[in-house]
Amino acid sequence: MSAGKLVGVGVGPGDPELMTLKATRVLGEADVVVHFAKAGCASRSRAIAATHLRAGVTELPLLYPVTTELPKCSGAYRDAIGDFYDAAVAAIAAHLEAGRLVAVICEGDPLFYGSYMHLHARLAPRFAAEIVAGVTGMSGCWSAAAIPMAQGDDVFAVLPATMPESDLVRRLADVDAAVVMKVGRHLPKLRRALERSGRLARAIYVERGTMTDAVMMPLAAKADDDAPYFAVVLVPGWEERP
Amino acid sequence: MSAGKLVGVGVGPGDPELMTLKATRVLGEADVVVHFAKAGCASRSRAIAATHLRAGVTELPLLYPVTTELPKCSGAYRDAIGDFYDAAVAAIAAHLEAGRLVAVICEGDPLFYGSYMHLHARLAPRFAAEIVAGVTGMSGCWSAAAIPMAQGDDVFAVLPATMPESDLVRRLADVDAAVVMKVGRHLPKLRRALERSGRLARAIYVERGTMTDAVMMPLAAKADDDAPYFAVVLVPGWEERP
Repeated sequence: MSAGKLVGVGVGPGDPELMTLKATRVLGEADVVVHFAKAGCASRSRAIAATHLRAGVTELPLLYPVTTELPKCSGAYRDAIGDFYDAAVAAIAAHLEAGRLVAVICEGDPLFYGSYMHLHARLAPRFAAEIVAGVTGMSGCWSAAAIPMAQGDDVFAVLPATMPESDLVRRLADVDAAVVMKVGRHLPKLRRALERSGRLARAIYVERGTMTDAVMMPLAAKADDDAPYFAVVLVPGWEERP
Repeated sequence: MSAGKLVGVGVGPGDPELMTLKATRVLGEADVVVHFAKAGCASRSRAIAATHLRAGVTELPLLYPVTTELPKCSGAYRDAIGDFYDAAVAAIAAHLEAGRLVAVICEGDPLFYGSYMHLHARLAPRFAAEIVAGVTGMSGCWSAAAIPMAQGDDVFAVLPATMPESDLVRRLADVDAAVVMKVGRHLPKLRRALERSGRLARAIYVERGTMTDAVMMPLAAKADDDAPYFAVVLVPGWEERP
């Protein structure tokens, strides 16, 4: 029996219609569908792709043991996550050894800030592996807000809000356009960094970008500093030019 | 009669199967399909979307009068491009005033380094306008190459190869991951900048990312400095972590 194939399938930013034709085809062919979720929560990627899963397909849910409860630099976090990926890889490898087509569904794009990469790095050396690119969460956000982001020779950056305020100020001032991720409890710091770098007036706050209950507003108009971990702030770089 | 609607439709990086379900639906509903091309060349976005255009749909090709022949800072370039967009906007506005659904098809994502933004900026203040996010060219490239790009708290940047060598060195050294665009005749300079910033060993050269005739190789293994304008260099930031 020949070994199966691993496919990392991007299912896009949230709106099921932003799945690609290729993603829907691969899900229709897959023997096993793998999806990530936080323990106790429904998988967001599975919810996006639900109508394209074959009836009776084998599903392998991977439940993160921890997400933001422990600092990423801690030994306890590293041990818990390492054990989690080892077990996931063993379960997927058993399906691949049995010759099955295993699709790992991923929000956004599989190789851009996605958990799939941890599986890919461990399994691609041993098995055939392929990627189905997806619409990223950030594309979903700026498209829903209809904000032109970057043009021509613009320098564009993705910045995590977790970095120190002085780094945020320096980096925001050094680029034409930016997306700031992982806003959550860092919003007061990010707001100050945008002010200090002269970017606050153009910054757009976005929650649940392509969902029907999306929230979008100029950050300067947001009255409070409550933000979920997955909220983003868009700093568009483009202004009308010929 | 009520006015129509403008829709910027991302058709993805090249593989027609990387179009979204929403893009195919909108193209099936559109009264008018607008596409960009260089004069004398077939439109790449139209070629991607061809099988989804309704038979007999009205098409409005927009042919760039110049692309790389004139420097962008020159008055002649600005005049030619300004006149081109003015004429395009007038033609599209006439369709919108007649109540039609006008789809502008765009390679990649409409609001990320795309020409559609010039139309959107001029028309969205006057007419209903909506965006269908697309898979970007860069996602198509790193997915075809199966290269994990960015993870966790990585800082990621998009850099045009047009900037001075010293700026490229500084910016490449300042981020975890990068995509360098518009490589073309700048490849010798980019190669030096990658060497000086310590990133050459990880850099991947990609031409026609998701086409069947794609070229991908470690840049260090590329023997010549011939590169088309649209070639990109990927500098992956991610290494395996728990």
